[in-house]
Amino acid sequence: MRWRRRKRSRRPSARTSSEALRSKCRKARRGKQALEQSEGTDMNGYQGAVMWFTGLSGAGKTTTARYAAGKLRERGRLVEVLDGDELRHTVCKGLGFTREDRFENIRRVVYLAKLLSRNGVDVLVSAITPYKDMRDYARGELPGYAEVYVECPLQVCEARDVKGLYAKARKGEVTAFTGISDPYETPEHPELTLRTQSVSLEANGAAVVEWLERHSPLPGWAPRNGKALP
Amino acid sequence: MRWRRRKRSRRPSARTSSEALRSKCRKARRGKQALEQSEGTDMNGYQGAVMWFTGLSGAGKTTTARYAAGKLRERGRLVEVLDGDELRHTVCKGLGFTREDRFENIRRVVYLAKLLSRNGVDVLVSAITPYKDMRDYARGELPGYAEVYVECPLQVCEARDVKGLYAKARKGEVTAFTGISDPYETPEHPELTLRTQSVSLEANGAAVVEWLERHSPLPGWAPRNGKALP
Repeated sequence: MRWRRRKRSRRPSARTSSEALRSKCRKARRGKQALEQSEGTDMNGYQGAVMWFTGLSGAGKTTTARYAAGKLRERGRLVEVLDGDELRHTVCKGLGFTREDRFENIRRVVYLAKLLSRNGVDVLVSAITPYKDMRDYARGELPGYAEVYVECPLQVCEARDVKGLYAKARKGEVTAFTGISDPYETPEHPELTLRTQSVSLEANGAAVVEWLERHSPLPGWAPRNGKALP
Repeated sequence: MRWRRRKRSRRPSARTSSEALRSKCRKARRGKQALEQSEGTDMNGYQGAVMWFTGLSGAGKTTTARYAAGKLRERGRLVEVLDGDELRHTVCKGLGFTREDRFENIRRVVYLAKLLSRNGVDVLVSAITPYKDMRDYARGELPGYAEVYVECPLQVCEARDVKGLYAKARKGEVTAFTGISDPYETPEHPELTLRTQSVSLEANGAAVVEWLERHSPLPGWAPRNGKALP
């Protein structure tokens, strides 16, 4: 199973100098020095999950993530939804839709997800994330990563067109639009696939909750009769 | 006391529609819709503190924050250090040192600090934050905000010049440099003042820990003989 949990050492200072040196080299190689230096801790050993909702615009990523987040909070979990669209107004402001900008966008979302999840917060990311190498990057960076493919045929997404973006893309008013003028590389081995055309929001939300509780149980909690105990 | 704790409702869905509408208007007015929509939760009612270390470059903000963070983690707290310099390589990449860019920089740090602190993580921010209105913005946005003025005379910071930036600023190779070619507005009413010229790192770190444990105790924890109980 690719999905895994990580146990962090609470006392990096106790490492021997050679270990510290090796660790330093590793960090430098990975090029993620900034975050590593912050030395986050875990919550009673609990590494939060990062469920990464990928799919076309209008497939239902954010709707499903928000619904599932509500259900998870009712069960006592700390949950944040990181919505790619929203983040473009805050930490990703100024970034466009070129391949490079899209990647920078994802790097920043990964950064936020890492900060939160290593402190015991479950993170539901909603972002188109059209390229496989972006998703592979997120998987490599995030210990609690799980890919959730929100599957919906392009025609259905286009018919919904909640934001009116497909119409603009067809007219050429929006360029590099995923599914129309930019590719969407379908996930090959997602941890979870949600079909929003044929399955209800409630059922899809329940699938997310069930997956998360099975693969990322809170410490000291045990599921009983489908309900978590405090 | 300006410093305060916030108790968040766990069930926004249970609000009446008029309450919901009022809340919606409030959010829109505040112009921080993006973050509010994420609807974060607290950790057993614990709103993390945000201790905001402000001061000149080289005053010892990051050094003190990291030292205090280590001590706080030993006491079982979830702590993150958000270092302004580091964030300029991640979520603040591409921003310069104009007044506008500096403000955007701070807005993003505030965003991260809010995400973390509302999930029960104590955040130690290390950022020059030279203008009063920046710090007032952070105070207004962050329920657990506490200002930590890291005081050190300019001459001492310049003599230390750990990053070689003062020399460059004097030569005019770095523009808009705080203390040399850009103002630093001294905090008027910080919650805590640390003097790094005359007081040791250990003593300053202990002052941070003591302040935080007194003003932001973890739920279910009680200090006894100066030591927190698990």
